[in-house]
Amino acid sequence: MPVYADPVDGFAIGADKLWAFTDELARRVGTPVDIASDVADILLASDLRGIASHGTARLPQYMKLVEAGVMDPVARPVAERATPALVRFNANNGWGHHAGRVATDDAIERARETGAAISVLRNANHYGIAGWYAMRVARQGLIGFSMTNTSPVVAPTRARISLIGTNPIAFAAPAGRFGMLVLDMATSTVPRGRIEVAARRRDALQPGWAIGQDGSPATTPELALTGSLQPLGGREETGGYKGYGLALLVEVLTGVLAGANCSPDIVGLFSTEGPSDLGQFFMAIDPGAIDERSGFEARLERLLDRLTRAPLIPDAPGPVLYPGQPEAEREKKQAREGIVIDREHHASLVELGQRYSVAFPPARPLR
Amino acid sequence: MPVYADPVDGFAIGADKLWAFTDELARRVGTPVDIASDVADILLASDLRGIASHGTARLPQYMKLVEAGVMDPVARPVAERATPALVRFNANNGWGHHAGRVATDDAIERARETGAAISVLRNANHYGIAGWYAMRVARQGLIGFSMTNTSPVVAPTRARISLIGTNPIAFAAPAGRFGMLVLDMATSTVPRGRIEVAARRRDALQPGWAIGQDGSPATTPELALTGSLQPLGGREETGGYKGYGLALLVEVLTGVLAGANCSPDIVGLFSTEGPSDLGQFFMAIDPGAIDERSGFEARLERLLDRLTRAPLIPDAPGPVLYPGQPEAEREKKQAREGIVIDREHHASLVELGQRYSVAFPPARPLR
Repeated sequence: MPVYADPVDGFAIGADKLWAFTDELARRVGTPVDIASDVADILLASDLRGIASHGTARLPQYMKLVEAGVMDPVARPVAERATPALVRFNANNGWGHHAGRVATDDAIERARETGAAISVLRNANHYGIAGWYAMRVARQGLIGFSMTNTSPVVAPTRARISLIGTNPIAFAAPAGRFGMLVLDMATSTVPRGRIEVAARRRDALQPGWAIGQDGSPATTPELALTGSLQPLGGREETGGYKGYGLALLVEVLTGVLAGANCSPDIVGLFSTEGPSDLGQFFMAIDPGAIDERSGFEARLERLLDRLTRAPLIPDAPGPVLYPGQPEAEREKKQAREGIVIDREHHASLVELGQRYSVAFPPARPLR
Repeated sequence: MPVYADPVDGFAIGADKLWAFTDELARRVGTPVDIASDVADILLASDLRGIASHGTARLPQYMKLVEAGVMDPVARPVAERATPALVRFNANNGWGHHAGRVATDDAIERARETGAAISVLRNANHYGIAGWYAMRVARQGLIGFSMTNTSPVVAPTRARISLIGTNPIAFAAPAGRFGMLVLDMATSTVPRGRIEVAARRRDALQPGWAIGQDGSPATTPELALTGSLQPLGGREETGGYKGYGLALLVEVLTGVLAGANCSPDIVGLFSTEGPSDLGQFFMAIDPGAIDERSGFEARLERLLDRLTRAPLIPDAPGPVLYPGQPEAEREKKQAREGIVIDREHHASLVELGQRYSVAFPPARPLR
């Protein structure tokens, strides 16, 4: 996922303070300590990496779901069916971040025994950035995957209505001195979060991102939010059927395989109509099972070294990057200088703090 | 992969006859019976499905590799390192089709025990359409994956030169009355084979498919073949970094994980300079391990039913399709009416037959 540009008139706040605020809020609605800690870890990772759409900006909505009785803050995932390399969990409609972390750790442990292992979750909730779970695997020296289905906001190729989710694919691998290779991408041209941020910041929309309700290209965030996103590749002529195919790949491995809801039936995060019953997929592959572990990382390092030193096209805005590099750089900067949030995001958290009597920590205005 | 339009002035030939010709030719250069049969099966599957670029049109080049001593027609894959869910094979530089079939079958067998299983191959050769191996898994009621790296013909986002392969992702799942869902896609905007076919048929090129040697958009197949393909999504502004990221995902699971060559160092299929040493990845996931098998297929059937009946955009050329549907329809038609090959393809096979004293079977001219 590409990093958002810093807003012009936002606030900067220390990551530790924002973590503590998030953790405290989650606990106010009855979330057990360890679950609240997972929620705060994952929302903060998103903010730190510059993915403004998927972090604490969504905290008000998560709280609303708990308050409405739609999400169960104390529920824990339980393994229902298990073979050594494939386990299905029932997330029991608890916090998505916690269930995802537990399923990921389970896959890591089993992969160490069997070489590779998969966990799928049904009855799950939104789990923040898909990349976090893949990165958790890669930090252990393994190759990680994470996928989730989402509510229907994307129109299949040729269709006028939204029937599939933005269904992200996240992939991470340990990469020696490059840290990690992290691909975290919606299978739509853009994630819905990017449209939400555009609406919040009153940015224009790129053509090819979305269609309006009548099937014509959407030119404003408002038209896009009432219409449908387009699959990666855009229109049929420009390869949009590949993005549609990738979205279905994710759907098959999540909703269909786990026996959860499939995209057309999923209640969106911003509705309290009922539980989402998302399906999620996590995989860990241990290169050390068939090789010296350092062999894998050394080869990946050599490859990335070669790619990032390639000669450039004339109008290149910078050197060739590897997936996850902009996010890692943003994380380093924001860990040092504070996380930058925009004005609306800030106001929504201050208001949320007031409602639950958790003071929002002082933040430094950007201008 | 989208199906090619039938050429205007080609020939139609029975699939059985073309299979026998292919099998006989492979055996003329010393290929054992069972290996030749795999080669013929997989090349014919490509022709039948309308993927003109990856079938018998490549037979002359495969024969050239064997003749030059670059590929070993009698070599068989051997498992080098094995854990229950992850096995690495050395393909020993034999026919790619056979090694891929053996690695696939091994993954299917292990997945039945462990729920999911992966095979990776190093020292491998071109294996035809990636989709064939995934479909072989799906025919057994399991979810299948197949990926390969290829020689460098794609420029990473911002780069002027080719450093990554078209690195296809193939995915298949059993889909009840819909047969199979089969996604088989290059992670470039188009596969190189499509440019080759365009050159053979003198078709124009779509913008965004490729760049010339100077980094500007290629407008003819000739410019594209001396320049670089673009990753899925096209330029950076239109999401090309996602296609580049997907190509790297494939590279990590093939060349890097298997310890084979990585794309920048791979000798192309059309060179006899040396062995390719490709890396390949195969995976089987058994839904029946965590569910009633019919449960998975019933859910996928329900989903596809919903998608294919969606209301259409005004200028839709037909109903919403599912991945693999056009190829399956073409296969049914060509199994009945014969495989259509273009004039150059036909001439190259006739000539090949003359060289090896294997008569090319009579074919019906299209006009």
